[in-house]
Amino acid sequence: MKSELRLGIAGLGTVGANVAQLIERKSDLLAERVGRTIRVTAISARDRDRRRGFDTDGMAWFDDPLTLAREAAIDAFVELIGGSEGVVHEAVKAALERGIPVVTANKALLAHHGVELAKLAAANGTEILFEAAVAGGIPAIKTMREALSANEVNRVYGILNGTCNYILTRMEKEGIGFDACLKDAQALGYAEADPTFDIGGYDAAHKLAILTSLAFGTEISLESIFVEGISRITIADILAASELGYRIKLLAVALRTDSGIEQRVHPAMIPARSALAQIDGVTNAVAIDSDLLGSILLAGPGAGGAATSSAVLSDIMDVAGGFVPPTLGVPPARLQPYQRARMRAHEGGYYIRLAVYDRVGAFASIANRMAENGISLESIVQRKADLKTGEGTAPVILVTHETTEAAIRAALEALSKDGHLSGEPQMIRIEDLD
Amino acid sequence: MKSELRLGIAGLGTVGANVAQLIERKSDLLAERVGRTIRVTAISARDRDRRRGFDTDGMAWFDDPLTLAREAAIDAFVELIGGSEGVVHEAVKAALERGIPVVTANKALLAHHGVELAKLAAANGTEILFEAAVAGGIPAIKTMREALSANEVNRVYGILNGTCNYILTRMEKEGIGFDACLKDAQALGYAEADPTFDIGGYDAAHKLAILTSLAFGTEISLESIFVEGISRITIADILAASELGYRIKLLAVALRTDSGIEQRVHPAMIPARSALAQIDGVTNAVAIDSDLLGSILLAGPGAGGAATSSAVLSDIMDVAGGFVPPTLGVPPARLQPYQRARMRAHEGGYYIRLAVYDRVGAFASIANRMAENGISLESIVQRKADLKTGEGTAPVILVTHETTEAAIRAALEALSKDGHLSGEPQMIRIEDLD
Repeated sequence: MKSELRLGIAGLGTVGANVAQLIERKSDLLAERVGRTIRVTAISARDRDRRRGFDTDGMAWFDDPLTLAREAAIDAFVELIGGSEGVVHEAVKAALERGIPVVTANKALLAHHGVELAKLAAANGTEILFEAAVAGGIPAIKTMREALSANEVNRVYGILNGTCNYILTRMEKEGIGFDACLKDAQALGYAEADPTFDIGGYDAAHKLAILTSLAFGTEISLESIFVEGISRITIADILAASELGYRIKLLAVALRTDSGIEQRVHPAMIPARSALAQIDGVTNAVAIDSDLLGSILLAGPGAGGAATSSAVLSDIMDVAGGFVPPTLGVPPARLQPYQRARMRAHEGGYYIRLAVYDRVGAFASIANRMAENGISLESIVQRKADLKTGEGTAPVILVTHETTEAAIRAALEALSKDGHLSGEPQMIRIEDLD
Repeated sequence: MKSELRLGIAGLGTVGANVAQLIERKSDLLAERVGRTIRVTAISARDRDRRRGFDTDGMAWFDDPLTLAREAAIDAFVELIGGSEGVVHEAVKAALERGIPVVTANKALLAHHGVELAKLAAANGTEILFEAAVAGGIPAIKTMREALSANEVNRVYGILNGTCNYILTRMEKEGIGFDACLKDAQALGYAEADPTFDIGGYDAAHKLAILTSLAFGTEISLESIFVEGISRITIADILAASELGYRIKLLAVALRTDSGIEQRVHPAMIPARSALAQIDGVTNAVAIDSDLLGSILLAGPGAGGAATSSAVLSDIMDVAGGFVPPTLGVPPARLQPYQRARMRAHEGGYYIRLAVYDRVGAFASIANRMAENGISLESIVQRKADLKTGEGTAPVILVTHETTEAAIRAALEALSKDGHLSGEPQMIRIEDLD
């Protein structure tokens, strides 16, 4: 049997403590599978005296993760503090500079500094592993870096935020509005007190930025992602989606286009009969379309202590086994610059819901503005005037054939100026899954 | 850059030729990702003169795969001939005896000789990789062996046979009977001229035998699998399933029970709203329930040249990278003997469809036979007498609460003897996915 693998863990919150407990509790199983004993030899956290459910005897204590990363007698550095700046960033760099592999669950660190860190790792003959940073326990990173290693990816997309998916699922299943669902999600611990990072789509965007780099061999570009959250989705949209044979999910999508890589996070309508549409609650899913493999879908728990710990342990086992592919799939010197496809060039179908004043000329305005912008309609449904859409207005729902984002925006702007609409038009993109 | 990886490929059918073509066409991409050039240096096939779409210059030709495995100057042996006995078996053993890793897509070889081969590999310091042997391009083996390396599995199940899934999907979507669908599947090349291996459930059983070993760390036991094919499924069952909120799929299931490991392949009713139920046509899916990760689902193409080649290439890349986990997840000496849970002890809900003669006492017979065997009913529906079920009979559909296979068999046998049924009762197991 090979020599033991000595781990330093920085951060002993839910996941950090759970990882240390599991290494203690499952030591025989892990050693049997990887042919090597795994032992935590150094730890760092805020409060030294707290009980954490594992035996800290024989573990060196560090008040400061940076000192642990720099000085501890370890073979791998496990970063489970979180946050992209300051001491966390410094500690990860310090470990890499020593040539020590880093295992982390930190999506923000990777999304902001992934390329810099991959370069530093490569320069020191080591790598970073981050399975837990994207889609929790789902082996999305391993699949992308290893199972698809002979494939060229055309599109990667998925449901990457459990909070949003929980809210949208409850809205649909129980007919409860967005605000009430958000409150429940907060009460259940699925959403933060300030939920903006989740419901605004930013959490999903961080994960997408990482997946995009792995999928297309490009540098990470978080700031290029078009991001739209779920707070404008109403029960009226969810009901209309259902009638049209769709369900609404917050999707994160990256795809190769003629003008570059398109990256976007937004609510999308997807076919109700697809496997992806059945991914409910806090479950996550990642789908990958590639040249050889065609389409594959991975689904599972997107968060939670045990699932995240499972992903961290899978990375630790890979380190123990001795082979880790390049951090971002290819050596960092081979990463291509990210070339952004503008969102205005996005092509797809659109769902549009309007509250139209019930008067002469309103329908002509809709028809003309669509025609002027070269948009053809797959369906148009006007319902009887309904108090919910405001006095004297009727809901009109349009579904377009494939068109461009630029055309839709121009048409909706012109339509608004015509003065027949009450409030802003609602627009939801339709994602073609074939 | 490390030295090149020299491959010997035995078998140049669709997959073998495709793998060689892809290694030629994608050589830069593969080398970039793994830091090493991959080159085919030896080949063997039936017909030396056939054109195969890749450049054979510089490749040593062997008339016999066994000689290739024994003598060629190679670092890995890629077996793509198929079949579990004879020269294929000998050639794989010969490569392992030289300490050369083997990559194969051969489910029969693994299902019949996996433990013997794993022992031989371990004794010679090498391993066997077989991602393509189970569920085509889906990274089921990698996920099981690596992503779940810290997990204990409770159940593994899935849709492992594309032919059956194609037939059941068409029966449901188009209302066409089994025989007609089978003929279409044969015409499209999805089913063999003798379709028994697929529609009888044996192909799925071979794949399940391998997954079971990986999931539970037990020796492979193909002969212990309870196998029931799809040929008795009728449109009446598919319609009844739909009304009850289910869809019918050929499932392969292995789970840990108090009395051992239960392995079974049979048509099963699964909730129509589950992601698994949306896996249509020739697509495969593998679901794994484990202690840390909870439930994950992987879905994708279960067969086809490109998808299979992708899986073979993923294995080759792992060999090139230098680390491969133990063939069956743990060193073969640590594999536990397989302890079989008897099918009669299987617990679950059941769907039962009877053609009952329309006369006094028939219903009492059903009610009494169920009660005698301790079976409680979730629903019971009798439809009006229908010519399709035979003269003077009416279809009765029962759904039971959880009971045992032994109780159901006893109840149905007694019911048949009572003489109120026309023909044999139909029984389909209900699989609980939660």
